[in-house]
Amino acid sequence: MAKVEQGTTEGKRMQISFDEELAALKEKILLMGSKVEEAIRLAMKSLVDRDSKLARQVIQSDRDVNDLEIEVDEICHRLLALHQPMAGDMRFITSAMKINSDLERMGDMAVNIAERALTLNEVAPLKPFIDIPHMASIAQEMVKVSLDSLVNKDADAAKKVCERDDEVDNLNDQIIRELISYMLEDRANIKRALDLILVSRYLERVADHATNVAEDVIYMVQGKDIRHRRG
Amino acid sequence: MAKVEQGTTEGKRMQISFDEELAALKEKILLMGSKVEEAIRLAMKSLVDRDSKLARQVIQSDRDVNDLEIEVDEICHRLLALHQPMAGDMRFITSAMKINSDLERMGDMAVNIAERALTLNEVAPLKPFIDIPHMASIAQEMVKVSLDSLVNKDADAAKKVCERDDEVDNLNDQIIRELISYMLEDRANIKRALDLILVSRYLERVADHATNVAEDVIYMVQGKDIRHRRG
Repeated sequence: MAKVEQGTTEGKRMQISFDEELAALKEKILLMGSKVEEAIRLAMKSLVDRDSKLARQVIQSDRDVNDLEIEVDEICHRLLALHQPMAGDMRFITSAMKINSDLERMGDMAVNIAERALTLNEVAPLKPFIDIPHMASIAQEMVKVSLDSLVNKDADAAKKVCERDDEVDNLNDQIIRELISYMLEDRANIKRALDLILVSRYLERVADHATNVAEDVIYMVQGKDIRHRRG
Repeated sequence: MAKVEQGTTEGKRMQISFDEELAALKEKILLMGSKVEEAIRLAMKSLVDRDSKLARQVIQSDRDVNDLEIEVDEICHRLLALHQPMAGDMRFITSAMKINSDLERMGDMAVNIAERALTLNEVAPLKPFIDIPHMASIAQEMVKVSLDSLVNKDADAAKKVCERDDEVDNLNDQIIRELISYMLEDRANIKRALDLILVSRYLERVADHATNVAEDVIYMVQGKDIRHRRG
């Protein structure tokens, strides 16, 4: 009798620790997401406002995201190694490991944008910023909604993120075409236009990573893989 | 007695199935790796030999890599869900999930290079190819060695991959500088130079992904994380 009770208490303790660790995992992913969203926002601000001090801050603060990536991975490993998660939790944990990589790479994109800002802020502006901030705001929105869909286990919201990826790709193509026309017009524009093309591509990759996150959420919720559909 | 024997047989059957599935995972990852290596090699060949038919083949065959990505993920999920892998196997499986994503993205880079080849093959060559094929061969070597290091659980070989990443980054910077000088020289060079800059960046990203694979191998072998070391 005593033995059975002990077993039950042990089981409960294990359960609580599992639930607590799972909650901590969710919290860290969201913290990382909010840091990445902020980094992209500030990197764009450093470009548009020509604020190199801010750009350097963005580059510095990427450390926090990198540290969080390692922490999230450690929590995932502990959850998998010490507990035997059920199918649903298992899918959450393995999705979290992938989303973790995507978030870290979005952080790298914010750093890349800030680095371009540092170069561009040294020279006269090529043209007023219109399309690139527009593209940035769509990409940021995609990051936000993809993480909300993770928390709410909302596959419909995640699908909407995937749908917006084409919009960003089209905008990227349009921006590159316009910047090439600036290059053709005057060779003095070439370096600046090239830096802006890179910024546009970094934002496109942010949107790609948000789409990856959304696809992982759909997999997690529905237990089916929607990547590379041939339909 | 009969029951104990049955239990043992059951245990053995489970073990064999686990080992078999783990072996299948290794095999699929290597198959995927060899397909990706080949795709990068052929994409570069389609560019250097101006062979658009080959470029289209590369784009088509990316489906195989995408299918393998889904298969590998499924095997990893089954291994984690149906068995309770020991620490070493667990690290192999979670590393395999990440390496899987990196390989799939390298496949995308081969497609991107082939797409640039299609565009570039329509116009006269800008200049003879020297540095870009050199960079490609380093990146391909990094992919190969990173996968060998995975199979042989060889952290030293993996470390050598990480060390070569700087070499590729420097080569990329040099290539971009040279291509910008072509752009400045004659506006007729701009579009072609820009396409070549993109090819150079795709190769740089292949090297980045190979470095990610190598870092995962080091983590797997040594059980410690070497990402984002602060020196």
